[in-house]
Amino acid sequence: MSLVQLDNYGPWTVTPSPRRETDLQALQARLYATLADFVGAHDGYAFFDRFDNMIAVTDGMTVADHERFQEQIRNQFPVTVSIGVGVGETPTDALGAASQALQAEGSAQDAERTERLATAGEIGETTGSLTIAHFDVVDVTGEFTDRKAAGETSLAIQRATVSLASYLREEHEGIARFVGGDNIIALCPSLDEGAFEAAREHVKTTTGIDLQVGIGEGETPHEAGYRAKLALEECRETGRRVDLFGPRATIDQ
Amino acid sequence: MSLVQLDNYGPWTVTPSPRRETDLQALQARLYATLADFVGAHDGYAFFDRFDNMIAVTDGMTVADHERFQEQIRNQFPVTVSIGVGVGETPTDALGAASQALQAEGSAQDAERTERLATAGEIGETTGSLTIAHFDVVDVTGEFTDRKAAGETSLAIQRATVSLASYLREEHEGIARFVGGDNIIALCPSLDEGAFEAAREHVKTTTGIDLQVGIGEGETPHEAGYRAKLALEECRETGRRVDLFGPRATIDQ
Amino acid sequence: MSLVQLDNYGPWTVTPSPRRETDLQALQARLYATLADFVGAHDGYAFFDRFDNMIAVTDGMTVADHERFQEQIRNQFPVTVSIGVGVGETPTDALGAASQALQAEGSAQDAERTERLATAGEIGETTGSLTIAHFDVVDVTGEFTDRKAAGETSLAIQRATVSLASYLREEHEGIARFVGGDNIIALCPSLDEGAFEAAREHVKTTTGIDLQVGIGEGETPHEAGYRAKLALEECRETGRRVDLFGPRATIDQ
Amino acid sequence: MSLVQLDNYGPWTVTPSPRRETDLQALQARLYATLADFVGAHDGYAFFDRFDNMIAVTDGMTVADHERFQEQIRNQFPVTVSIGVGVGETPTDALGAASQALQAEGSAQDAERTERLATAGEIGETTGSLTIAHFDVVDVTGEFTDRKAAGETSLAIQRATVSLASYLREEHEGIARFVGGDNIIALCPSLDEGAFEAAREHVKTTTGIDLQVGIGEGETPHEAGYRAKLALEECRETGRRVDLFGPRATIDQ
Repeated sequence: MSLVQLDNYGPWTVTPSPRRETDLQALQARLYATLADFVGAHDGYAFFDRFDNMIAVTDGMTVADHERFQEQIRNQFPVTVSIGVGVGETPTDALGAASQALQAEGSAQDAERTERLATAGEIGETTGSLTIAHFDVVDVTGEFTDRKAAGETSLAIQRATVSLASYLREEHEGIARFVGGDNIIALCPSLDEGAFEAAREHVKTTTGIDLQVGIGEGETPHEAGYRAKLALEECRETGRRVDLFGPRATIDQ
Repeated sequence: MSLVQLDNYGPWTVTPSPRRETDLQALQARLYATLADFVGAHDGYAFFDRFDNMIAVTDGMTVADHERFQEQIRNQFPVTVSIGVGVGETPTDALGAASQALQAEGSAQDAERTERLATAGEIGETTGSLTIAHFDVVDVTGEFTDRKAAGETSLAIQRATVSLASYLREEHEGIARFVGGDNIIALCPSLDEGAFEAAREHVKTTTGIDLQVGIGEGETPHEAGYRAKLALEECRETGRRVDLFGPRATIDQ
Repeated sequence: MSLVQLDNYGPWTVTPSPRRETDLQALQARLYATLADFVGAHDGYAFFDRFDNMIAVTDGMTVADHERFQEQIRNQFPVTVSIGVGVGETPTDALGAASQALQAEGSAQDAERTERLATAGEIGETTGSLTIAHFDVVDVTGEFTDRKAAGETSLAIQRATVSLASYLREEHEGIARFVGGDNIIALCPSLDEGAFEAAREHVKTTTGIDLQVGIGEGETPHEAGYRAKLALEECRETGRRVDLFGPRATIDQ
Repeated sequence: MSLVQLDNYGPWTVTPSPRRETDLQALQARLYATLADFVGAHDGYAFFDRFDNMIAVTDGMTVADHERFQEQIRNQFPVTVSIGVGVGETPTDALGAASQALQAEGSAQDAERTERLATAGEIGETTGSLTIAHFDVVDVTGEFTDRKAAGETSLAIQRATVSLASYLREEHEGIARFVGGDNIIALCPSLDEGAFEAAREHVKTTTGIDLQVGIGEGETPHEAGYRAKLALEECRETGRRVDLFGPRATIDQ
């Protein structure tokens, strides 16, 4: 996993005086879109996380690929990025390793620490199969979007995200992030169906929100994630709440 | 306030088969950036909210301005947007009115409901002064970014956001949203310093996270928000935890 | 008219060493798109011109609007822009005045000359009706795109553009620019149909390429240009080669 | 080489009524930026050409890479693209083959012809060394930008581009395109210094404009183009008008 961190961004946003918020929102969003496109070209996955710290699943991307991304940002944006890359047995391990590698280079607000690329472990090798779980809220349109105030819906989904992310992190060293709409995507170790059912129940109990989840495995994040999406489509059609992608006829990816 | 909703977006993302996640992430982010730029040109504020439902503070933007935004999206993106616009005594009122106006037009997943512009109240008039509060985490770089794993930091800030947003919504009919980094921006009715101190304490008690906040008032969201940023700079310099923008010498905005 | 010039751009592209060409191409294109969106929000028109020098028709845009654009570029791009704004009896006059105003501020490659906004004349007032002529190549798809090599087609249209632009500049102080496909848009003083027929004949004689043209007048560039597009549609339907937008039933703009 | 053609774009721009010109300008520019980024990630080169027909040097990009680009456009833009890919002894040959392959699939304005990928020859293999020549105008800032009206400068550079492109096409089956500022980039067969001197003289004689040129060879367009840029820097420093990249100390690309 890769942690992409904007160099000395906080100070930049207020120098020489605070910059217009909508300009910063647009800048951050486009910089994230650039990351999403870049890792997408390598069959990876990206999450906006905190925007000034973004995370990406970059199995198979080499050191040179990461440097190329840094070059593109430097040439197209008013800020630069440092990147920590880590490998690990679990998603939490990998992101922890990436974080530590980057922290060892200096502070995020050290003006001298720019465009570092810090790696922990062997980068650029795919490490076998990975698992992605794609969650959404059961009938979000009927239950929320079309009925409740936007502020209420949004808060409900944020609560479900925090509940799910905390649970998967503590129980399984997984990483879950909100990706828009009512969708939450989780990077997980290989888990059985019962583990996902338990996660669903945890979220239902703590927040009252009913999730469903499709699970896929694959050699790349895109492959695993695509299968998870197909499994989630199965949930929507069959009413099942947990669906593991199984053997199917030819898949057009 | 305006609620910008992508028309029939969920079905589109899986038709004819699930679309690549990174492509969707980039699409959503750029569409949001377009909104931020558009309302920014009118001195407004924008929040990504759920990306398929975005919210904007659009005081002074006319019906024609909103239609122009719909036109731009139609001409530049593969999806269209409907918009609900509402006014109200409080941010929650205004967003509630916008939500209801849009819901009355039909379901977000009704393929026939496209490019609606539904208004509730008199649009295009500035309604006097508004208040923006700009929060961030005290010493987030030293306490979190440079020390903890990215996954942990991110979760902590999400928890703080949910805690603050829930509190402000319930106590003051305010709307708070994460805007990147460790920043949370809240639209509030006019409140005294004690109310913000109480909000800080609520977040500290429920999540352990120490926030500071700058508060600004102004005729436009940009003006109020800019003053809030200046006040937050005061917090960073003086160690105060709550700062209201007060009389100052000439401000270069 | 406004001349938007990237500050000290040439040196930047080779500092500290030459930057990757595709990064520069993407940067320039997105910066131009940002300008097009910005002036489009004010019913203006924009041309990429040389990308490091772009031109825009900005009737009705104030000094504050231009400063806002400079602010947006500074906050979202790695380069800044200076702008010259000029008014004049003819398009050539206005662009000439804008150029001189900017040149008086210093050299485009003076590292000290950044973010200047130089005006010549009264800015922000619409100066009455303006004329836009929208040209394209008769049956370009059948004659060129579907039959000839892309390189040949492209060169033919470049030749037609240079021929038309030179002619309109010399004969009528108009400004014509290629805008993509087989389209050339010209800003003109008010001219009669015969003048456009003569321009067509000049291009036909010098390059062998057969153009048709729709002409519109209006209070804003968008209004004039939209009418020119409708007139060009008339050409396509009726076989006329020159069409002035005339009285028509309700127009949905 | 690859010819990227927007499917049925002309009709789309006027359906159901003519779309706003600035929206189209921004759309085209961002779509081109997306292509530039995509081929840039593969060390290729891109030219905007006519925007609705763009050309790219895609040595080493596979059929799957091209399909991935089509997928990204489909998912992020309101239009789709078809692509012809051709190989050849010379740039003109290769682009001609790409054009013919695409034309054989149907008309650019056939609503049924969408997202075709037509190849002529073995795709995805690098075909050895290629040559890129990077031209610019001697002292363009001093002679033009800082002294003449923007309209005049722009026309002068367009004339030089047409003159150079026509010459290189006829004499050497090369392809030259304007890339912004005063820069023209040419794809050439391997030529000696005298051939470039003759091209310069042709442009000087026909248009009065004095060009200088750096020439690079390499395994990828980026490598060849980067060396051409370094050679052009030599011209700027030494006053030479033609410079071939030669043996140098370590190059940081």
